[in-house]
Amino acid sequence: MKLWDKGYQTENIVEQFTVGKDRELDIHLAPFDVLGSIAHATMLESIDLLTEDELFKLQNELVKIFREIESGKFEIEEGCEDVHSQVELILTKKLGDIGKKIHSGRSRNDQVLVDLQLYVRYQIEQIVNLSEKLIHKLLELSETHKDVLIPGYTHLQVAMPSSFGLWFGAYAESLIDDLLLFKASYDTANQNPLGSAAGYGSSFPLDRKMTTLLLGFEDLKYNVVAAQMGRGKVERNMAFAMSSIASTMAKMSMDTCLYMSQNFGFLTFPDELTTGSSIMPHKKNPDVFELIRGKCNKIQSLPIELNMIINNLPSGYHRDLQMVKEAFIPSIEMLKDCIEMAEFMFDKIIINKDAIKDPKYDYIYSVEKVNEKVLQGIPFREAYKMIGQDIAEGKYQPDTEVKHTHEGSIGNLCNDKIKAKLDKAVKSFDFITANEALQKLLLL
Amino acid sequence: MKLWDKGYQTENIVEQFTVGKDRELDIHLAPFDVLGSIAHATMLESIDLLTEDELFKLQNELVKIFREIESGKFEIEEGCEDVHSQVELILTKKLGDIGKKIHSGRSRNDQVLVDLQLYVRYQIEQIVNLSEKLIHKLLELSETHKDVLIPGYTHLQVAMPSSFGLWFGAYAESLIDDLLLFKASYDTANQNPLGSAAGYGSSFPLDRKMTTLLLGFEDLKYNVVAAQMGRGKVERNMAFAMSSIASTMAKMSMDTCLYMSQNFGFLTFPDELTTGSSIMPHKKNPDVFELIRGKCNKIQSLPIELNMIINNLPSGYHRDLQMVKEAFIPSIEMLKDCIEMAEFMFDKIIINKDAIKDPKYDYIYSVEKVNEKVLQGIPFREAYKMIGQDIAEGKYQPDTEVKHTHEGSIGNLCNDKIKAKLDKAVKSFDFITANEALQKLLLL
Amino acid sequence: MKLWDKGYQTENIVEQFTVGKDRELDIHLAPFDVLGSIAHATMLESIDLLTEDELFKLQNELVKIFREIESGKFEIEEGCEDVHSQVELILTKKLGDIGKKIHSGRSRNDQVLVDLQLYVRYQIEQIVNLSEKLIHKLLELSETHKDVLIPGYTHLQVAMPSSFGLWFGAYAESLIDDLLLFKASYDTANQNPLGSAAGYGSSFPLDRKMTTLLLGFEDLKYNVVAAQMGRGKVERNMAFAMSSIASTMAKMSMDTCLYMSQNFGFLTFPDELTTGSSIMPHKKNPDVFELIRGKCNKIQSLPIELNMIINNLPSGYHRDLQMVKEAFIPSIEMLKDCIEMAEFMFDKIIINKDAIKDPKYDYIYSVEKVNEKVLQGIPFREAYKMIGQDIAEGKYQPDTEVKHTHEGSIGNLCNDKIKAKLDKAVKSFDFITANEALQKLLLL
Amino acid sequence: MKLWDKGYQTENIVEQFTVGKDRELDIHLAPFDVLGSIAHATMLESIDLLTEDELFKLQNELVKIFREIESGKFEIEEGCEDVHSQVELILTKKLGDIGKKIHSGRSRNDQVLVDLQLYVRYQIEQIVNLSEKLIHKLLELSETHKDVLIPGYTHLQVAMPSSFGLWFGAYAESLIDDLLLFKASYDTANQNPLGSAAGYGSSFPLDRKMTTLLLGFEDLKYNVVAAQMGRGKVERNMAFAMSSIASTMAKMSMDTCLYMSQNFGFLTFPDELTTGSSIMPHKKNPDVFELIRGKCNKIQSLPIELNMIINNLPSGYHRDLQMVKEAFIPSIEMLKDCIEMAEFMFDKIIINKDAIKDPKYDYIYSVEKVNEKVLQGIPFREAYKMIGQDIAEGKYQPDTEVKHTHEGSIGNLCNDKIKAKLDKAVKSFDFITANEALQKLLLL
Repeated sequence: MKLWDKGYQTENIVEQFTVGKDRELDIHLAPFDVLGSIAHATMLESIDLLTEDELFKLQNELVKIFREIESGKFEIEEGCEDVHSQVELILTKKLGDIGKKIHSGRSRNDQVLVDLQLYVRYQIEQIVNLSEKLIHKLLELSETHKDVLIPGYTHLQVAMPSSFGLWFGAYAESLIDDLLLFKASYDTANQNPLGSAAGYGSSFPLDRKMTTLLLGFEDLKYNVVAAQMGRGKVERNMAFAMSSIASTMAKMSMDTCLYMSQNFGFLTFPDELTTGSSIMPHKKNPDVFELIRGKCNKIQSLPIELNMIINNLPSGYHRDLQMVKEAFIPSIEMLKDCIEMAEFMFDKIIINKDAIKDPKYDYIYSVEKVNEKVLQGIPFREAYKMIGQDIAEGKYQPDTEVKHTHEGSIGNLCNDKIKAKLDKAVKSFDFITANEALQKLLLL
Repeated sequence: MKLWDKGYQTENIVEQFTVGKDRELDIHLAPFDVLGSIAHATMLESIDLLTEDELFKLQNELVKIFREIESGKFEIEEGCEDVHSQVELILTKKLGDIGKKIHSGRSRNDQVLVDLQLYVRYQIEQIVNLSEKLIHKLLELSETHKDVLIPGYTHLQVAMPSSFGLWFGAYAESLIDDLLLFKASYDTANQNPLGSAAGYGSSFPLDRKMTTLLLGFEDLKYNVVAAQMGRGKVERNMAFAMSSIASTMAKMSMDTCLYMSQNFGFLTFPDELTTGSSIMPHKKNPDVFELIRGKCNKIQSLPIELNMIINNLPSGYHRDLQMVKEAFIPSIEMLKDCIEMAEFMFDKIIINKDAIKDPKYDYIYSVEKVNEKVLQGIPFREAYKMIGQDIAEGKYQPDTEVKHTHEGSIGNLCNDKIKAKLDKAVKSFDFITANEALQKLLLL
Repeated sequence: MKLWDKGYQTENIVEQFTVGKDRELDIHLAPFDVLGSIAHATMLESIDLLTEDELFKLQNELVKIFREIESGKFEIEEGCEDVHSQVELILTKKLGDIGKKIHSGRSRNDQVLVDLQLYVRYQIEQIVNLSEKLIHKLLELSETHKDVLIPGYTHLQVAMPSSFGLWFGAYAESLIDDLLLFKASYDTANQNPLGSAAGYGSSFPLDRKMTTLLLGFEDLKYNVVAAQMGRGKVERNMAFAMSSIASTMAKMSMDTCLYMSQNFGFLTFPDELTTGSSIMPHKKNPDVFELIRGKCNKIQSLPIELNMIINNLPSGYHRDLQMVKEAFIPSIEMLKDCIEMAEFMFDKIIINKDAIKDPKYDYIYSVEKVNEKVLQGIPFREAYKMIGQDIAEGKYQPDTEVKHTHEGSIGNLCNDKIKAKLDKAVKSFDFITANEALQKLLLL
Repeated sequence: MKLWDKGYQTENIVEQFTVGKDRELDIHLAPFDVLGSIAHATMLESIDLLTEDELFKLQNELVKIFREIESGKFEIEEGCEDVHSQVELILTKKLGDIGKKIHSGRSRNDQVLVDLQLYVRYQIEQIVNLSEKLIHKLLELSETHKDVLIPGYTHLQVAMPSSFGLWFGAYAESLIDDLLLFKASYDTANQNPLGSAAGYGSSFPLDRKMTTLLLGFEDLKYNVVAAQMGRGKVERNMAFAMSSIASTMAKMSMDTCLYMSQNFGFLTFPDELTTGSSIMPHKKNPDVFELIRGKCNKIQSLPIELNMIINNLPSGYHRDLQMVKEAFIPSIEMLKDCIEMAEFMFDKIIINKDAIKDPKYDYIYSVEKVNEKVLQGIPFREAYKMIGQDIAEGKYQPDTEVKHTHEGSIGNLCNDKIKAKLDKAVKSFDFITANEALQKLLLL
């Protein structure tokens, strides 16, 4: 606990405190750091700050590092404080002074910016893909179980007829809204910050349009101070999108845990996907969905966590921004796990088709009866009184056939329209342009 | 304090507690409630649940109510708990039973949903317009003061040359990113929830496509349970966008307050826009920007406030959702005031052109000197040593002419490109379609 | 919307924006502002900055203002920006220059500080009193219904026998923990900030010990900069306590809403305390508890709301602090309403004594059977197997008599010990000293 | 990324997802798990559920495990999901069936509760000790530099004379308030939950008073459901205290970073404790304080993070609670590091005694001049005018001798009183009783 009792030199204490978890977290940024470096070097050659030969050597070594990262063998050594230092170290070991030349007109500040923005683009692609799979699964379940009625609740009171068709489909359509926020986040990240240097630009005649093209960015973040202000903001805006989808998933998990309670008994899962009790043989606990709920609820606090860190900091870089990574990166991994697990679990869900038959749900059909009479021409108030009296006198007989026909109702789920919405949302991301640009950087 | 000592009946205590601030807040929703009712009535007539004559009478009265709201004379009476009851009361007083017929196939739940979503659309339009004005002002100031240098800071340490051109332009470009989140929020709100009734649809053959068209929605929120789940989520997602722009504005205000401190002295405002001290004649306090900062920082906690209310609630309506309005609506008014005040204040800002001349800023030019030598062919390490030595020996003479030429740098602000980005962002909202549809509803 | 189109002078726009809701909110601080002024004047006389006669006149007028506030007739006029100006205005109107003399050695900054800290002390007293009543009601209900069993849940799965005795008592004991945080908050507020002036003290020979005594503070906040730093922090720390009790109350409300669902059916309330449905005669909605939950969940976001406002502000007063009041004061009123309503509702709760008889709860007694055999000397694993086999073969017969005897269990609730804890917690607040001091100030 | 493509069995995917970071985090709970087990075993023997010999053997092995934990050699193996399983495994390997007997009348739920509450007690002791050291350092610096004036700011505008004596002392006194919240948190945790089993008690005649005594708890958490509800709440309430001290430390760091800026130049640190720039030789960056600020700001979001996880969960255990540990434990380590680093850095701080001499600070003495005249009998308004005129005519000559004498002012810091407050706060914790009890458990 006593930092200075560990025999460290003063400098080491400071270094240890300031490096923090960077070595561990920067691994996530490593491939993007290399790609950013290739683009920067290519541009430097175009403005004569590198020779063709120097560029070739740098590119060659950088691609090697990229492949090492891909294979999982890349590590940030004890002596290096972050991924940028590590890559520089490797280049300098291999190429001597050429390795240092790559830093002309660039600062660690815009390097982190470009790394993080490429990382955000990539992670959004992953999340969108996983979400798409989950939504497909939900729509499939909605179709499969469209005829299985369950009670619909308001105020947690039994209210109207609902169905598993509606329930699964609802989360599918709701998840699509979350993708809209990811699109806004993607567009924010998809603006090239490279060239902003320490946040105030450079006196070198950098060609920022060229790096924009090379890295597949849609546009430049022109103003260099604006580019620097993106740090923290890009992450926070992605955190908004993450919070939104996490909120939808948490609600879905809450429903699932509730419906699996013996007091509802609408659904369950195979034994091997639940946990039991060492003393109560009747128990099957929905731990996976409780943890999806817990993790997603944790993720929902990410935006305010980031806001607390960046709030009221004047413009210009501050070291505080390092803390953003520490909250941000693990949350992304956590979110992806949750989406993947939800799809995995729903694939094996067991639906109780008969839950609705419990007499306590009989009253959910009373409104239908009233409406029926209204459609026959009887005024609503009178119809309502008639059914009310039937109930009071015990003469009410539920008619359990539900005849909802309008768009989005039990009898007309419109899952094809929801699927079309999903396709439109997914297509709005131009992942292909971004990926093709990055692939090209790796070809010598 | 003692609710039951006030001579109230038990029921009144409960009513008072449950009504809360609804009467006050619902005034904001009133015009949209009326518009939603006109659309619903028109659709009911098309499926023969209202006669042509009944529809005409209803429309007529509803337009009258709308005009009353417009003129500021509409009030929600003591006896009425919300805007929906008030409108129904007026219709019933005027038209008797016809006034009640309008509620077929509709529930207060989807009425609030449609009101809130139309309200969100409208407020986003207001915010986008105000933001556009502010961004224009910032770009204008950036151009006007593009040659006024100020020091750029990193770690709050004097670092590199910056300029008022860069500083104003940075907030302009950064604010455009915030509009991207408003677009995502707009698209979420722009899906018709009408027809979802209490959250489980209706057995009436409602034509939801028709109300979608009439209210100028871009699409339906198809699944009725998904529509109901929009309550709280639509507001929370708009809160994300509000939080984002509030964050940018708070940072801008922090800079402004700091730069107005005597320790910086970069800018000031006319006396009548600042507050003085009753005992210190030298003081000019930037209260307006402190309050923009404070209000914007408060707004940044809106998303988590809404999340805390809606979190872990199972699907289906809960009365808790009423609290969402209480946090949401006043924050929108607060945000608009802040954007408007910022533009008002910046219009009168007084810039200190000479702040940069303080010798403590001389070192910001040292990097330029190094880069200059690098461009002359001297290797970076050597150039760096030479300048370092000059500084150490007191021979360093700052060359205060800054020659940054790349995109987004001091010498090449690219404000035209930023303006083009703004135009693209603003055009992405299709306010016209929405507004035209609503206007048409008011024509008999 | 357009502030400058309203025909206002520039100054008015700024004034309107900066005054905000102060006039409305400061009414809550008015009595404490007057009391603080009496104490300050008394002290000024003791150091010869007021004559005895001047003090007498000031005291006289201040007591009159206090009585007016008590009677609800006090108002802050349009022209006055806050309560301090209003009181000063009245004094000056009545006493001329003497009215102004009271401001020697004082600044609006320490006036707000002292007002807020006295207000916090008072409000904590109110909250503690209301909480005590609620806890007594819960303990009373725990005793009354101690024999009514309900299932205990883990993972929302039916698990073990619980009882209404346990359930009510649990919230009673849990609420006592929340009082501990109020004590910490009380002690923080109970340190006299008066004399800190604008946050840096005064060159007048103020007798801060005297005002400490006069206002019934336990101690001085000595360091004047520390006193000023209390602004925001005192409120935020009370917000922690409020958040804690709100969390307990929200959970209690969640249980209540769930248990009132037809899927549990453990409890209900008289019709006049619930809301029905215009179309579903079987519905009884727990709106009051849904709103207690919603309001309490909103209150739980108060600390982070305040933190966002005060975060990263350097030391010294900033106008942002005005926003703290706007979030803080209404939340206190909301919390008190919730505690009061909870007690009001629980007083009328209707318990279902037979819910436990549903066969789906039979398994909750299985652990008892196993333990019984263990106490008879059969090893646990063997006992477990025997009961497990009985269950599997349908031979399991639940023994519904629960024989828990240890402290805090179903058969031994220890409500007397919990009551003793409550008494200790309440007694730890020295409200009497504080109140007696303030009363004395009003005696001439 | 694809969990099910890794060749895992279905069960493994679920297990991996549900175990999460428990193995890593539970190491922090390990010593307390063992101590809780010794106490439980001792009690079981007293009610004849263990023989004297069995107890002796269990105690013996448990002490061995404790010593292993102390030496850092204890590990949770791959196959074990948490610390409880690991300890059980060791006991069973060594003692066979006796190892299992220890679980009578206990569940993993109350084991985690007792572990966490003992852990909280211990960590609060650590934090209080570190805080005490920091406060002593601040008081020492306040005394040392009591004559060094700096300007005091309001609205970030130069306002009144302040001093390093005031500044250091302010943070000392403010930190003491934070300890009050730790006391409330300590008292909440210091109530024995053991015996609550799965949250509903046990049919074994457990002697909960005995384990209370053995574990040095001040009292029982009587009601077993209340005990279970402590999970999450105990941690959240400690998070409030952590948030409070973090807020104070973040503000202190903000001041420090600002004062180290060339625009203030009030203080600095030795080169080896700051970071430089590879291109700007004049830069000394306060990274350590930026990171204290960033980390402390992150910690301030811990309460809402925990609230989001536990919010709206009905009573009874849910697996979501596992996520609480993941946010809670690392934050404690982070906080301790920050307190320690702050003390380490302040120990080496370099104060600029001459900063105040800059002419821009001359006006801070004007109020003194006015007050002086008031004390000479000239009415305030007249005195104010005279000085105002002097300033306007350039005749104002600052008298830089500050004669503040009242308690807590520049000339009378009352650091001895502040120290007395600190001692009282620290003594209010009864760490000795707790520690002695735990020590006794380790003696056979």
